[in-house]
This record gives sequence, C-alpha cells and structure tokens, in this order.
Amino acid sequence: MPGLLHLDASARSRSFSRRLGARFADGWRAAHPGARYVHRDLAADPVPFIDEAWTELCDEVLRRRITDPRRYHEAVGTPAQRAAWAVVEPLLDELLAADVVLVATPMYNFSVPAALKAWIDQVTFPRMSLPGTRFVVVCARGGTYLPGTPRAPVEHAVTYLRDFFDGHFAVTDVDVVAVELVNALVDPALAARRPEHEASLSAAEAEIDRLVAASAAAVA
Amino acid sequence: MPGLLHLDASARSRSFSRRLGARFADGWRAAHPGARYVHRDLAADPVPFIDEAWTELCDEVLRRRITDPRRYHEAVGTPAQRAAWAVVEPLLDELLAADVVLVATPMYNFSVPAALKAWIDQVTFPRMSLPGTRFVVVCARGGTYLPGTPRAPVEHAVTYLRDFFDGHFAVTDVDVVAVELVNALVDPALAARRPEHEASLSAAEAEIDRLVAASAAAVA
Repeated sequence: MPGLLHLDASARSRSFSRRLGARFADGWRAAHPGARYVHRDLAADPVPFIDEAWTELCDEVLRRRITDPRRYHEAVGTPAQRAAWAVVEPLLDELLAADVVLVATPMYNFSVPAALKAWIDQVTFPRMSLPGTRFVVVCARGGTYLPGTPRAPVEHAVTYLRDFFDGHFAVTDVDVVAVELVNALVDPALAARRPEHEASLSAAEAEIDRLVAASAAAVA
Repeated sequence: MPGLLHLDASARSRSFSRRLGARFADGWRAAHPGARYVHRDLAADPVPFIDEAWTELCDEVLRRRITDPRRYHEAVGTPAQRAAWAVVEPLLDELLAADVVLVATPMYNFSVPAALKAWIDQVTFPRMSLPGTRFVVVCARGGTYLPGTPRAPVEHAVTYLRDFFDGHFAVTDVDVVAVELVNALVDPALAARRPEHEASLSAAEAEIDRLVAASAAAVA
C-alpha cells in the first residue's frame, strides 16, 4: 500500500504553497484509496533544532559505519541522546515509510524556511539514501526566479532541495511546481505584475493536476 | 565607535566554526578597544521561527512602502503582531548597530543550519539594505566543497550567504573563511584525508589572523 508524507512549511495559514500542496494531496489520496497519509505541519507544530546530543548520535553512527536507519538507535547512550532520539525517531519513521514526500514550501530569503530546514537537519544522517522515494516540491516565491530571469542564479530553495535530495539521498525522482510573484498581491511596486502571477498560478494548478493524473494512471 | 555582532550557529559546543569565530572575535576586539561587542549564540539561545503575525508585519511594511527599519514598528497592530515585534526588535537592533557581522556557522546538509536561517528569517524585511555593513563568514564543512571539487556546485551554505547578503542587503563586503573535511576526525571512511583537513585548518587560522591584522591596520 503506497504512502504519502505531506509537509507544510509556510508561516502563513492561508498560503499559496499550502493551497497547492493540498491540491496535490487531495488528488493523490483520491487516486490511491486506502493509502497511508501523514500530514506534518512544520509551522504549526515545529520540530526543534538539532542539539549537541543529536550531533553525538550522528558521530556514533559514522564511527560505527551504520548505514541502515533501523540500526541508528544502537548509537543511543546517554539520557540526552535518548531525548534527541525521541524527537528524531517518529520523523524518520514517517520519512522512511513514505513512497511520496510532498514538500509544500515558500521561498524565504532566497532559501527554504528555517522550519523546513529544521526538519531536514533532524531526519538526515550520514550516507542515508532513500531508494524508491519520490519527492514532489510545491514552492511559492515572492518574486520570479525562473530560468533566464535575473534572480535565477540566487535561487537556493528549489535548487537546494534538488541538489540535496540527489546529492545526499540519491533521489533524482523530484517533481517541482512553482508559483511565482505571489508578492504582487501585497507589494504596490509589483502590482503591475499580477497578471504574470495569475498565469503562473494557473500553470502550477494545471501541472499539479497533471502530476496527480499521471500518478492515478500508474496505479490503474 | 565600531561594533561587532558575533553569531554562533553550531549545535556543537566545541566546534570548528565556534573556535575559528572566537579567534576572529578575540583578535578584532583586541584591535578595537572599547568597541561594542554582542555575542549571540543561536544554538544555545535559539530564536523562534517566524509566525503568521510576523508575515502580517512584513506585508504591512510592503503595503506602506516602509523602507527605514526605524519605522517598521508602525506596522504593529494586533497583540500577536506586538509579540512578533518583541522578538524581532532586539535582533534587528543588534544587526543595525553592527559595523561587522561575524557569522560562525557549520554547513549542515549542503546549507546553513536551521538555527541560523531562523535568525535570517526574523531580521530580514523587504528592501532592507545594510549600507556600510561588512560580513565575515567562518564556515566549517564535513567534506570538501572548494571550487573545482565535485561537490562545489551543491554548496548552498557560503554560496547562499554571499548571494543573500548581496542580493537582499546589497552587501558585497563579505570575507569567507572555510575549514574543510572536519568529518575526517570522526568518519573512518575519511580518515586518510585528515592531513587535508589539518592543512585547511591551518590555512583558515592564518586567513583569520590576516583579516584581523588588516582590520587593526585600518584603525591604526
């Protein structure tokens, strides 16, 4: 039975990344009746920053050359490490059980929100690969960072996630849907670009529907 | 009188980024007797993630086209916004009062730690430039990401900070000192590369001493 892990990272309760992420999740769940589904809201229910005890676990996993996540718990020794592991374990279980990880996130300050990075820092151990996992990234950006635009080279949100999923988890099955210029709705200086934002939103919705349909066709 | 804001972001209490950051801070303070100095430990004393009320402040700053940080408080309306502003204000005051911002940080998972990103997300408002501010970034990395190495293209820590300081704050006066391969001390698979790490550490220490000497010469 397939499983979807759905992460939300926006500080806004009504955000474009939440809205588009929900569109994917709703469609995917309708196409996969009975599938496992976990929604984790990293803004409403934030995960803590990794602490010193977490780094001790990580070092011990390296020293013992443990590569199977089911054996990470063997690295736990002290009470502080037990407390760190109690935070990691459920996050890691959710990630390892997922066939599809949906990351719904805004770009903040050219990168991912700290709330999303806190989750990444918690669940990532050395040489941890995720064979067979697929990532779907739904990203809302205040300006425009599409290939060919002046700001494309400073895009460290989607670019970062792609590089990290590939370079660390060895996952290249990553679909990205981005909606651009969401600040055009609040920033008077960008008001003239609202049509561009609206076209981007329509295209993002169509792309999500296409991804859902492809996923439905694959199980049919 | 010049001022130094010194940020630490490592989850490790004894880390290379802390050690090298302290080397810069100690040297700089010796060269600038009586200068203002603020040390903020983002791991020991973490700043919270931005929340919905923070995003409301940000939107209002945009709507009113406020560009002077001394006027951001005018955007505060609701009790939740007052609470968000109470978190931001001291962080922003420290940043705006600094001539030099020392960012001592490890690379975690190809990027900056969530603890550092949480600070960036709190202090960054639309169209906020920092004329005259200088950044010194001291970064410790588990592997090697120097120009020309296979992993250089996926470096989203120093590269990100440079792009963000330039692209958002309009600051190009950024010095970077990086120490490579710190994992060679714990990872058996990297043990053979310890000499490379040690050479990198010596070079980083020399570079910090050079930056301190240049800063001392500038005030002499």
